This record gives sequence, structure tokens and C-alpha cells, in this order.
Amino acid sequence: MPTQLVKNLVGRMIPTEINGEPAIPYQGIGKYRPNGQKYAPKISTCIDYPSDGNKLVPTLKSALEKAGLKDGMTLSTHHHFRNGDLVSNLIFDIAKEMGVKNLRWFPSASFPCHEYLIKYLEDGTISHIEGSMNGQLGKYCSQGKMKKTAVLRSHGGRYQAVQDGEVKIDIAVIGASCADAFGNANGLNGPSASGLIGFALADSQYAEKVIVVTDNIVPFPCYPWQIQGNNVDYTVKIDKVGIPEKIVSGTTEVTKSPDRLLIAELTARFCEEAGLIKDGFSFQAGAGGTALSIGNFFADIMRKKGIKARFARGGSNKYLVNALEEGLIEYILDGQTFDLDGVRSMRENPNHVDTSPFTSYNYHGKGNFASMVDVVILGATEVDLNYNANVVTHSDGYLLHGIGGWQNCLFSKNVILPIPLFRDRIPVIKDEVTTICGPGELIDIIVTERGIAINPLRTDLISRMKGSKLPIKTIQQLKAEADAICGPSKKPNLSDEIVAAIKWVDGTVIDVVHRVIE
Amino acid sequence: MPTQLVKNLVGRMIPTEINGEPAIPYQGIGKYRPNGQKYAPKISTCIDYPSDGNKLVPTLKSALEKAGLKDGMTLSTHHHFRNGDLVSNLIFDIAKEMGVKNLRWFPSASFPCHEYLIKYLEDGTISHIEGSMNGQLGKYCSQGKMKKTAVLRSHGGRYQAVQDGEVKIDIAVIGASCADAFGNANGLNGPSASGLIGFALADSQYAEKVIVVTDNIVPFPCYPWQIQGNNVDYTVKIDKVGIPEKIVSGTTEVTKSPDRLLIAELTARFCEEAGLIKDGFSFQAGAGGTALSIGNFFADIMRKKGIKARFARGGSNKYLVNALEEGLIEYILDGQTFDLDGVRSMRENPNHVDTSPFTSYNYHGKGNFASMVDVVILGATEVDLNYNANVVTHSDGYLLHGIGGWQNCLFSKNVILPIPLFRDRIPVIKDEVTTICGPGELIDIIVTERGIAINPLRTDLISRMKGSKLPIKTIQQLKAEADAICGPSKKPNLSDEIVAAIKWVDGTVIDVVHRVIE
Repeated sequence: MPTQLVKNLVGRMIPTEINGEPAIPYQGIGKYRPNGQKYAPKISTCIDYPSDGNKLVPTLKSALEKAGLKDGMTLSTHHHFRNGDLVSNLIFDIAKEMGVKNLRWFPSASFPCHEYLIKYLEDGTISHIEGSMNGQLGKYCSQGKMKKTAVLRSHGGRYQAVQDGEVKIDIAVIGASCADAFGNANGLNGPSASGLIGFALADSQYAEKVIVVTDNIVPFPCYPWQIQGNNVDYTVKIDKVGIPEKIVSGTTEVTKSPDRLLIAELTARFCEEAGLIKDGFSFQAGAGGTALSIGNFFADIMRKKGIKARFARGGSNKYLVNALEEGLIEYILDGQTFDLDGVRSMRENPNHVDTSPFTSYNYHGKGNFASMVDVVILGATEVDLNYNANVVTHSDGYLLHGIGGWQNCLFSKNVILPIPLFRDRIPVIKDEVTTICGPGELIDIIVTERGIAINPLRTDLISRMKGSKLPIKTIQQLKAEADAICGPSKKPNLSDEIVAAIKWVDGTVIDVVHRVIE
Repeated sequence: MPTQLVKNLVGRMIPTEINGEPAIPYQGIGKYRPNGQKYAPKISTCIDYPSDGNKLVPTLKSALEKAGLKDGMTLSTHHHFRNGDLVSNLIFDIAKEMGVKNLRWFPSASFPCHEYLIKYLEDGTISHIEGSMNGQLGKYCSQGKMKKTAVLRSHGGRYQAVQDGEVKIDIAVIGASCADAFGNANGLNGPSASGLIGFALADSQYAEKVIVVTDNIVPFPCYPWQIQGNNVDYTVKIDKVGIPEKIVSGTTEVTKSPDRLLIAELTARFCEEAGLIKDGFSFQAGAGGTALSIGNFFADIMRKKGIKARFARGGSNKYLVNALEEGLIEYILDGQTFDLDGVRSMRENPNHVDTSPFTSYNYHGKGNFASMVDVVILGATEVDLNYNANVVTHSDGYLLHGIGGWQNCLFSKNVILPIPLFRDRIPVIKDEVTTICGPGELIDIIVTERGIAINPLRTDLISRMKGSKLPIKTIQQLKAEADAICGPSKKPNLSDEIVAAIKWVDGTVIDVVHRVIE
């Protein structure tokens, strides 16, 4: 447990050490300069790999044994199968069976199906999780039950941490819906198709040992090779890697809530009036009901104006795919496909391109795609009067969501948070957010059902919107309206104990999560 | 100049130092184990790159200045434009203009058009070349005129050397027929289209500074991104990167020489009788007239048998593309496209896949594709009675060819050298080859117009061919026939002075090239 705290640039008290490793406090946007070299994996040699390319081993257990699984190692997995993942739980069943203890689990994200792993946190098989936690795992962490401090990173931050050697992965297990015996793998084909498996890229490049697990072995070459067999040590065929209906729901639909529809419409009208929707522009919405609606409004505007978007960033879904097929969008640059239309389109349409956290989000690269996007639509659980936003904890203090690509997307040219003014009578705009995940200077516009607030730093947008009939207000006004309806916000009941750290895109610590006193 | 020589495993005297760096003598196939870590490039940060992704600088000179070009640096270029390359010469014109000296040029290969650079070797702008040399540059080197020792590597060896930090590239200049301002680039589109630009992959991943040069800037995203902008520092648009008719000749045709046709036919018949051509098999031929003929004979056999090849490895050309389009081949896994049909096919056909020296040839990876290929057809300038072969020097001692992927392909399951018994009345089979580029134990079959020799190590093939009507002979018999016709071979007139080193795929030195006494 940390012994010393320092105040970081956004005023949060940050430990100087996390799990025995030095932690660097957040220093502002573009202030922290990495020094040193990228992580350098061991040089491999073909001497150690079968010349016929057949790296199949009989079971996942034998693969983990060959990979040298032992106490204290870091094991990484990926969330391509989302809530239908059958691989991660199996790995820790095997670890338990082998009597291995104190593993650091480093998933690219976890889902409700991973609640199963709480028993292994309890019995010491897993020491802690570094990765986004949803639902029960987050609650478990919030209650201070995890033996070490959790570390949450954005998708880009995860790539950065691996690339920079901040997190050294001993064994990466990459579940794939399609692979060959050499380890070339993708997520496009097979019963557990999920689209792409780019979240495992860093792991395949930098982990000491890499295992590809599939239920669908094809003859070499498995193409596209979203994961390259040249980075893979062992391949394993198991009966079933995922539960298809939980991988791609196919049910994500635009919102039907009148309030949410209003927010979506206000967002789209704002973008149009502010001149953000123009020929060759780019946008990233997301998969929530409001975001999908915004995408549809964007499509209407593009049709009306007779213009095209040069690209849209996924997570993709049938709405985005429709727009691509209609010719409203030239490229989808996709990070994950949320439904079967997305999977099909990525498989069939050369303009539906799979991307990775490296191309899209890595802040320690020579640029990335996120900052090139004109308009990005994001969510938040809370926003404060300085536009700082929270995306991981609720106002009661519980850590219930991951960061995903959220922090990375804040680098877009225009960041819009379309959010309800209150949820369950709890106002979303606060004097102070429970957890700062993103600094306010990167957040440009808040759209609520009762008005739109523009960050005062965006004097260009403010002057462009002069005379608009849209309900432009200050964020203070919006807060006052919500408070008048809901009454003053209650502070969460938190202990001093730190249960999780929130990393910024550059590896510094922007905030911590405290134990909830129940 | 080296002071000490040691004998390596194939009996060649090897310096213990090359250009002041320690050299490791060749130790046998699969004997030398690398230790240590891969080369670790400096960690970059988005702080240093424009957030709009526009990395364009006005001129190649300004890009080289920004990249910090100075005396003694290593500059890499690539041979995608082959004999139509306009970029490499331009770089050294600029270096000369800037007064920079003593550069190490590290091309993936050089062509006759680079004879232009001899003046910069003369005046000290370039100290030496590490990379394959063809024609006049090779002759210049053979005459002992280069200030330092040349180092020749295979395509895979080049990747290995960069990955392992054996060669540290200061500035990589990547010419591309198509790129966006961010640096995403490919060789598929534009007036200088050459197909793929995978030879620059290692450079883009590991060089300190990476410059992409194109004459064809497209809006972001340039897709496919064979080179990823996230690895690129600067982009430059110049008027013309290549001379199209010299990049892809479009004129490579099957041989019409009766002797060569006979060799091709014998090779194909041998493969058929030996059972090497079966459903799902794989092969790599090449672009020479004999190799093209062999490909056509293979296609005839597949049609006759009603079978398909799972994949063929390129260099691709219209014959291979025809076979793909006819359905005789399921995938072309291509390293370079030799004609416009190849370029078109790679652009349009998702089963015509671009590969890289990493996927195909890197010996210091977790396996590579080369060893999975069933049949590979290669050339040689000389072969000895132990099947050791030479591919870089002629029998007069002159270094006139590069290694290309030749050494890497020797790891294929069946390596066949279809070669004439003599060229210009000089026998090809020798007691001892001028330069050993590949150890005989990897070379399985020699096919000449007067008979076929099977390496005695391949007892399986020898017994399978028992009773064949094909002219199976010993290599000694073949040599005797050639010597009877041509008279005994003359030894080249060589000095003790070492002008070039030949690396094996694992970075050890398999042989050296001596200065020719003229």
C-alpha cells in the first residue's frame, strides 16, 4: 500500500508508488515526456519452432505449462469475445488446478461473465487486475477486497504501457475465432467471429510467450492475419472459445427514449450549425443508443448536403455499415465490431478496415489516428464545472466501468459529451467529479436535454454559435437547473484507502479510486 | 581491415572483425543461438507530432535536415522501384550538397541505376554499402575500391540484422507510390506502383527517423497501409519517385531456349514423380524464364490431376496471377510483384497477399513462412560437389548479384536448383565454389539439361525415384560431363584482401568475397 501521496496537476492526491512500482503523477496534457527505449523482447530463433509451422499443442493446460506458467506472472487476455468469452475463465481454472498463485491478470477489458473469477481473487490465484472492470469485479475492487491496487488504462494506454515496458506480459493468451497451426489468427471467420482482434496486438508483439486459442483451425495461411503467427509460440484448439450470441448481440438499436432522442438531435444540429459536418470530415460515435441516433442524424445531414465523410471510426454496427454501403462514408476505421453486420462488412468490404490501439490510440507513437478525427461523441458518468469528466465511477463511488478508448478519443478536434442532465435523479454535472478520467480542457461541448454548454476555451465555437436558436447555456446554468430539480448532490462515502489507479494516456496517474464505505 | 581470420564451419577463413565490429563465424544450420533482446527504439510521443496528422515537409532536403543527417550515419532505402528508383540517388545528391560524409548506405538491394552513386563512393559521401549489389557497384566493390567492407545479407537476414540491433538505421527513406500526409503508405496505387513495399518494414519499425517520399499524396487514410504512419516522422512529396517502365517491366516471359525448357520440364517431371505436387501443396518459383516455365508445367500437372496448391509464394507475375485467377492456387503470398498483372492482382484480389521479410524470412522470429513451403525453385552461379552453392559471385570472382531471398528459401522442404551445366563454356559444378552462400545440406536437387542429381542426404527422394526414367545421376557424373566438354575450370585470380562479407540468415558470416586481381 502506498505510503506517500503527492498532488497532481488536476489536484488529486496520487501515491508515489503503486504495487511497489514508482508512479508518475499526471503533469498536464502533452507535458510528460517519456525517455528511454521501448521494451525489447528477447530475440527468438527459428531453431526453437517447428519447421513445418505446426505449433499446435494438445491442450491449453499443456500450452500454459510449456509457456512456463508460475507464481507471480502476468497473464494477458482480450475482450474480443466480450460477454461471451470462454477463454479467460478457463485459463484461471487451469492456473488453479496447477496450484499457481498471485497472478496479475492484464485483460484488455473484463465483462460480467468474468465475475466468475472473483473466487480466484479470493483464493489468491489472482492477486489483482490491471484492466477495465465492469460490474461485479469493479464492485469487488471498490469494496477494497482485491489484494493489490487495480490499474485502469485506456486502450491506447494499455498499448503504451506494454510498448514502454511498464507492464511486462509473461504469457499472452489470444482467443481467436479463426487461426492456423502457425498462429496466424483473425476474428472474422468461424462460429465465434467477433470482427477483429487488434486489442491483442501489443501482447503478440511484446509478451514473452504468446498462445493462440481457437475453436476453428484452418490450413495455413489463415488470412487476414490480424495476429501474426511469427509472434506466436503455441497454438491450441479447444471446443468453444466463445458464446456467439453474447459476443455480438445484434440487438443494439437507436434510442427510443424521447429525452435521449432530443439529446441526439441537439448534438447533430449543433454539429451542423457549427460547421463541423462538411465534405471529407470524420467522426466517431459509439454503440450506445444515443450515439447510434446521432450517427443517423449525421447521415441525414450528409444526404441533405450531398457530402461524404472521409472516414468514420468504429466500433461499428449496422448503422455505420449502412452508411458505408450507401456511400456516405468512404472508410470505416474500426477498433471493434459491435454486431454481425459489422463483422460481415469487415470481412467483405475492403474499405471497412481493422485498426489497433497502436494505429488509433497509442500516445507514445509518432502520432495516432485519434487526434485526426473531427468530431467524437463520448459518454460520461459525471462532469464538473471545469469540464473534467469521469467515466469509471458512479456518484456513489463504485468503480463500475472501464476507460476503453475514451481518454484517447479526447484528442479529437471536437469532443462532445451528449449526456442526460441527471440519471435516477442524480445530477451528472458536479462541483467536483468522483474520479477525473479526462481533463476538462479536452472536452469541448456538453449536450443535455435542457441545453448545450460550450467549453469557454473554445472561443471559436462560441462565436460561431452566436445567434443560434439552439439552447446554448453555460455549464453553471445547466448545473443549477439540475440541482433545482434534484436537490444538492450527495458526496460518496469513501475511505482513504486507494483501490485503483487511473492512468492517463501517457502512463502518468491522473486519479485514484477510493474504497467505498458501505 | 580485419587483422585476424578464423575458419568457419564450411572451411572459409572469416575475419573476427568487420568494419570495427565483431563478426561471428558461421557455425552450421540451427547452431548459432542469439542471446539478448531485440533492438529497442526510442519511445516517441505524440507531443512531437502534428495533431492533425500532417507531417509533410516541403522538400526531401528539409526532411533529411530535420532528421539530423550528419557524417557517419546509416541511411536505408529500398528496392521497390527496382531499376526505376529515383529516390536513392536523390538522397545522396542532397547529402553531397549538405557536405555530409562517410555515410553507410543500407539498401534492401541495389540496381544498375545506382551505378550513379559510384561518384559518392569515390568522394567519400558514402563510405560503403551494406546490401546486395548488382552489376557495376558489385564490380567496383570487387576491385577493392570501396573504403570499407561491404556486407551482404539475404532479405530475411536484413530484417534480422535490424531487429537484433546489428545494424542501427539512423534515417530510413521509404519511397512509396502512394501515401498520405501522416505517412501511411503503399505500393499499390499511383504512377510508380510497384505492388508492395514490405522490404521497408524493418526500417519503419526500428529506424531512429523515418521519412516517406511519394509523388502521389492521397487524403488520410492511405489504405492499405503497408507502411504505418504511426512509425513515420516526416512525409515528402516530390515530382517523381520512379520510372514506371523500369519498375515493372511487364516483359518477363517464359524461356524460349530449348535447353532451359528442357531443364524446366525435367524439374516439373521430377516433382511430379517424387510426389511433391499434391493437393494443398505449396511452391515458390521466381521470375526467371526457366522458373516461369516450371510454374507453367506445375499448372499443367495440377490441371491434369485436378488438384490445387494451397499457396504459392511470389515474386508474382502474370503466370502466377493467371493460376490464382484460374483457381489452381488458393493464395499468393507475395514478397514483390514483378509485373503489372502482379500489381493489379494484389490491389484487387484479397487472396493475393502482401508479405514481408518478417513474415516470410526472418530467422530470428517465432518461425517463418519459408520453411513451410513444399517446393522452392532457385538459381545459382556455382554449385560444388557437396551441393554448397554460390549466388553472388561469378567464377571469375566478381561480385555481381545480391542474395535476395535465396538463403531464406533454402529452408523449404524441397530445394531445387534448375541450372545449366555450363554457361559460356564455364562449368557450373565445381570442386569448390568461389563463394559459399548456402550450405549443401539444404540443397536437395540439381536439375541440368543433362541430368538430375539428388543430394545423398535425401535418401527418401533417392528411394522414391528408384526406377524412374528420368536421367538421375550423381553430381560427380554431371561435373565430369561438363568438364569433359569445357575442360577443367580456371580458378579466379583473387587477392587476400576481403572486400565483402556474406552473412548467413542468423547473422553469422558464411563466407567473404576477395578482391579480384585484374
